[in-house]
Amino acid sequence: MIFTMNSQDLLEGLNTVTRALSARSPKQILEGILMTAAGDRVKMTCTDGSLVIECTNAASIKEEGQAVLPGRLFTELIRKMPAGDVNISVTDNRTAVIRCMKNRSSLAIMNADEYPEIQNLQSGTVVKIPQNKLRDMISRVVFAIATDESRQILTGSLLEVSRNEARLVALDGFRLAMQKLFQPFELPEGIDVVRAIIPGKVMNELSRILPEDDAFCTMLFDKNRMQCTFGNIRLTSGLLAGEYIDYRRILPTDFKTEACANRINVQDAIDRASLMAREGKNNLIKMSFHDGILKITSNAELGDVEEEMDASLNGEPIDIAFNARYITDVIRNVSDENLCMKFNSNISPCVVVPENGDDFIYLILPVRVFQ
Amino acid sequence: MIFTMNSQDLLEGLNTVTRALSARSPKQILEGILMTAAGDRVKMTCTDGSLVIECTNAASIKEEGQAVLPGRLFTELIRKMPAGDVNISVTDNRTAVIRCMKNRSSLAIMNADEYPEIQNLQSGTVVKIPQNKLRDMISRVVFAIATDESRQILTGSLLEVSRNEARLVALDGFRLAMQKLFQPFELPEGIDVVRAIIPGKVMNELSRILPEDDAFCTMLFDKNRMQCTFGNIRLTSGLLAGEYIDYRRILPTDFKTEACANRINVQDAIDRASLMAREGKNNLIKMSFHDGILKITSNAELGDVEEEMDASLNGEPIDIAFNARYITDVIRNVSDENLCMKFNSNISPCVVVPENGDDFIYLILPVRVFQ
Repeated sequence: MIFTMNSQDLLEGLNTVTRALSARSPKQILEGILMTAAGDRVKMTCTDGSLVIECTNAASIKEEGQAVLPGRLFTELIRKMPAGDVNISVTDNRTAVIRCMKNRSSLAIMNADEYPEIQNLQSGTVVKIPQNKLRDMISRVVFAIATDESRQILTGSLLEVSRNEARLVALDGFRLAMQKLFQPFELPEGIDVVRAIIPGKVMNELSRILPEDDAFCTMLFDKNRMQCTFGNIRLTSGLLAGEYIDYRRILPTDFKTEACANRINVQDAIDRASLMAREGKNNLIKMSFHDGILKITSNAELGDVEEEMDASLNGEPIDIAFNARYITDVIRNVSDENLCMKFNSNISPCVVVPENGDDFIYLILPVRVFQ
Repeated sequence: MIFTMNSQDLLEGLNTVTRALSARSPKQILEGILMTAAGDRVKMTCTDGSLVIECTNAASIKEEGQAVLPGRLFTELIRKMPAGDVNISVTDNRTAVIRCMKNRSSLAIMNADEYPEIQNLQSGTVVKIPQNKLRDMISRVVFAIATDESRQILTGSLLEVSRNEARLVALDGFRLAMQKLFQPFELPEGIDVVRAIIPGKVMNELSRILPEDDAFCTMLFDKNRMQCTFGNIRLTSGLLAGEYIDYRRILPTDFKTEACANRINVQDAIDRASLMAREGKNNLIKMSFHDGILKITSNAELGDVEEEMDASLNGEPIDIAFNARYITDVIRNVSDENLCMKFNSNISPCVVVPENGDDFIYLILPVRVFQ
């Protein structure tokens, strides 16, 4: 294998595919990057055994072939190369020689025959979603994906695409996040709904490598797997098996109290109150809506913090307590001028909704502290 | 104690003094900040038992007094406060109440009577050095201060001020760094030389809090201690006792080979070679100067890196090896266009000197690898 590629293209490819690289795999070959030179393209492939990321770039190929290069070291080396062309040459089964300007490096390679075979999806249901919209949806729900493995199904996020809307849902038993997309997206003729539970780790990596433009990401689903193709990148992953929780049943529809306050004020106040909450045992903050005032408080042995601000209140006054982190995670994802919360009681779920429209909903379980 | 201070002034003061704060001290009181309100000034004090940093700011004082506030939490809280006035009120011996806009926080305080007495230096020798020059000198030698406690005297840096020049020296047994300052600085009449060995930790903190302007920093030395005063800040520290190594004897004066190469080219090449050196056991890089070419190489089981560039050579060709980190540390401190190195042999110290002048000298011991 002998080819020349622009160092910037090579680095971008490596940065993308190494998101699936195993740092310390029991299988040493998975610490490598499979480079495949054929035609006028070079494909880079990394996999941790379940997630596969491939990236294909134009290159000037002198000799076709394959080799597995040490992933971390190769990427670090290319990252430090000057802008220009990089020539990579593998002429025996032991060493890749890398040349760039007056640098000449050699890296021990692994046998490409030992690299696991990457099986692409041959058929399935195709869903198309703009890259930037998909990226956005993911970033607005991932924080609520369960990290605790005790209920495995909750370590994934539910993608549910029907003819009218696409929904992405995550929940961990304490909070739920749902982001909707009304248009544009594409579902094949004759299919009413597609449901897939995508592993949390895959969601995280996908949101990091999806470009920010609005070209479509093509998602191909079969029973057990998903394959996303966008630009010169292809990501393949297993799906989680089983039934996701019926989240519709969890979402309350009627509320006794609706309250809004300036989001930035709430965020700053919670930021300060969290300092003290963290000192306490339960990381608790209390929110009290009374007479047009929102009071946010927290306390610990070392002291307490109390914040006041204007709030609009519709319905019964309420005193309610939350884990500070759950509130912080939610506020970070709201960009409206005001934060709007709806309640029934201080022991039933609170929901955070947009000021206008209904493209997201966050549900948070309160902590029982009030008698 | 009741006073009001601008939140930005308060935060700057806290950021400065908490550099001497003990993170987890066996003496709990040292995790606190001593606040002293008197006249129209508030003084903040932190100490870890040996280093003391004090900062004094203008404030509007309603009631004079003292209190010890929990250092870390108080600083984090003030960091998150909006711009404006902060009012701090201690009216009993248990709690400080902090008010800023619509925030009201309370913090448990400690008894100011238990805070260690801070003894200021009453007399000694005064040396004055511009803040920015002192800061610069420190940053150019600290990396060579020994971290290994086995020779305690080397965990400090020698400041040597004579009538013609001020020198700061650090060495750890493998390398030596010396930075000179020719002018401006001030030494009292009738004193020929001042020598003090300042602990490395103090050097680090001093370089972080010294302002970047050219006002003079007043350094007062007695036999055992040093007190630096600059702006509204005072830093007091013990000195290391004993004789520093006679560094003059270590510095070679004649050389068989002098070589120069473009500093940025050398830095980039060493950067890449270091990647491979790190994979090896000894973190070694080799430099070979022959026929107007500098070749930099490193190797490990995983491969090797080889770099070539133009170099000017005066004297005998040389092949020499170094610990990659020692070379990297030095290059980071050189800002000349070319890096100039002088050698006698590949088993005797190499020195790095400025392209012009003699305001610094770095000495590095090579590693014996060539026969």
